[in-house]
Amino acid sequence: MEKNLPKASTQKITIAEIAAQAGVSIPTVSRVLNGQHDVAPATRARIEQIIKESGYIRSSAAKALRKGSSGIIDLLVPNFDNQYVTEIVHGVEEALERTGLRLAFSFSQGKSLGERQWLDKIADRATDGAILVLARGQSSRLNELRRRGIPFVVVDHRGELGPDVPSVGATNWAGGRMAVEYLLSLGHRRIALIAGPPSFRCSLDRIAGYRAALEAAGIPIDPELIRPGDFRLHSGYTQTGALLALPDPPTAIFAGNDMQAMGVYKALYLRNILVPERMSVIGFDDIPFTAIVSPSLTSVRQPLFDMGRVATTMLVRLIAGEPLDSPRIELATTLITRESCASPPSPSLKIREDSQQSSLE
Amino acid sequence: MEKNLPKASTQKITIAEIAAQAGVSIPTVSRVLNGQHDVAPATRARIEQIIKESGYIRSSAAKALRKGSSGIIDLLVPNFDNQYVTEIVHGVEEALERTGLRLAFSFSQGKSLGERQWLDKIADRATDGAILVLARGQSSRLNELRRRGIPFVVVDHRGELGPDVPSVGATNWAGGRMAVEYLLSLGHRRIALIAGPPSFRCSLDRIAGYRAALEAAGIPIDPELIRPGDFRLHSGYTQTGALLALPDPPTAIFAGNDMQAMGVYKALYLRNILVPERMSVIGFDDIPFTAIVSPSLTSVRQPLFDMGRVATTMLVRLIAGEPLDSPRIELATTLITRESCASPPSPSLKIREDSQQSSLE
Repeated sequence: MEKNLPKASTQKITIAEIAAQAGVSIPTVSRVLNGQHDVAPATRARIEQIIKESGYIRSSAAKALRKGSSGIIDLLVPNFDNQYVTEIVHGVEEALERTGLRLAFSFSQGKSLGERQWLDKIADRATDGAILVLARGQSSRLNELRRRGIPFVVVDHRGELGPDVPSVGATNWAGGRMAVEYLLSLGHRRIALIAGPPSFRCSLDRIAGYRAALEAAGIPIDPELIRPGDFRLHSGYTQTGALLALPDPPTAIFAGNDMQAMGVYKALYLRNILVPERMSVIGFDDIPFTAIVSPSLTSVRQPLFDMGRVATTMLVRLIAGEPLDSPRIELATTLITRESCASPPSPSLKIREDSQQSSLE
Repeated sequence: MEKNLPKASTQKITIAEIAAQAGVSIPTVSRVLNGQHDVAPATRARIEQIIKESGYIRSSAAKALRKGSSGIIDLLVPNFDNQYVTEIVHGVEEALERTGLRLAFSFSQGKSLGERQWLDKIADRATDGAILVLARGQSSRLNELRRRGIPFVVVDHRGELGPDVPSVGATNWAGGRMAVEYLLSLGHRRIALIAGPPSFRCSLDRIAGYRAALEAAGIPIDPELIRPGDFRLHSGYTQTGALLALPDPPTAIFAGNDMQAMGVYKALYLRNILVPERMSVIGFDDIPFTAIVSPSLTSVRQPLFDMGRVATTMLVRLIAGEPLDSPRIELATTLITRESCASPPSPSLKIREDSQQSSLE
């Protein structure tokens, strides 16, 4: 991505221009800049000469030369209502501390500015670049940033953006498969999924992971066990009610994300159905409260802190005019096992607990 | 507080200077500026004349004249591990949106800068003022800000600062009393308190509120029922174990804050003691997850959003050179009742649940 900030006081040559002058590809220039050895000596010498003559600024030297720089990075987040945002912010903050850049903060939801107003505002403000955690991946907004020459990276926890947008995400398909494989390993065969909104790429990827795990285990997909949700507590709550009303209810619920898992907990609590004795529950995201609730929630961890950190590193490279290794990076999800999953109830346990439940009602 | 920023390009007269010239007290000048009518007409006319001649800037006009202003407010928070911080940030953000000032963000804990490093850094940076949510109310740090002429306001959720430091807090004593009065109204007589650290003013105030409510009800204080904590989950967990081991255990636990309440939940969950049927639990802070957990937690609400909002309003006045109505403001706490409190168990229910518990163990 080219940078063309009107306020910049130093002229910079881009990697693309070096490549054009040297008559080589951009990745070749990048390999030379990164000190890799797989470039022919003559080519390397030619590229290094152009770099030297052009005044191309490597990132370590870039900071000192950015006299026209505001020294400020803008971070836009929807709000703090979901703890995943705060994890991302921590990662951004840690990466920025090493750069000397300052973090300016805006919310796109809630009582203050909307995303459109924020974009109008950022144009009036000095900024070196932006990290965006969007409420919806609206590509029109991103085009607006491009048009204004503002470097940006999206922390795309929903996986909605195309591969050409600088963004960091997580491996949702692998995470979904992992959650179901774990439940299968505990002996579950009736495993429900409360999915997220079908407009979110991450949601479709998690459903695909769920299907892949069941199919690999030779278990037919029961469409009754796949329920739509919206990633909020309430849909976890209502869909659990619907699942329990089935003639053959599940013994485990993959809740799609941690907020929906809290809705599952609430529905089970009100029916006096114990977790994990009578129902296993697994979330996705691994936001901080998963470890705090009782029973603590087993969840597929999105490395939100690392996603914020990597997005910041990418943005600093873009600001310095350096190439990205790849515009789209996906970090690995991992399973964090806690107290909310167990083997499915045996028939004798089921009877004992049913009698308990009636004694409380 | 006087403002003496070296970067300011406009000369401002302070309220104190106006008062000295008019031969009146500072509160009198403040009353004239605020349009109050309890100032003698001749005095009012004299003060208004001095204000006019001096070029004193009221806040509405101040912004346009602050040519030397950075347009940036610095916010320092410990981290996001406790949700109360995110509530405060939301309040700051909402108040700032009306001012056109920008919010720069730093953490004093975790992997990045400490508070001392932050103070060194803020001296190098252009800032109009700072809002501080301190990990500890270290007055030496505040003196350092004063020395550098940086206006600041502390969101002092622990009530540790003296009355002369510009700060916003909450009524902790009234909140503690309110929590215990509610438990008394449900019929509880054995009410435990897991307190916060004795070095925090808010903790001492909540203990005093607890005592006041019990004394007003004619219930003797049992020192065994007042346990020390550190406001974290683990002390709620371990102190609940100690309380349950008493010969005459409590029927209700006032957990001191919401994180400790989550530790109480965990200790009760592992012993299969139902909330609220066999134990009532009440928290303090009312951070967002209190509504999400099952059962949802009854809690004394600190108006954290409003505390952030009011601190910002105070800071904007300080930056504009206007007087504060009071350097220390305390906002009211309120009781938010949810699912975690009920009347104490009757002897018959106690026996029934004890038999249940043994059937699960």
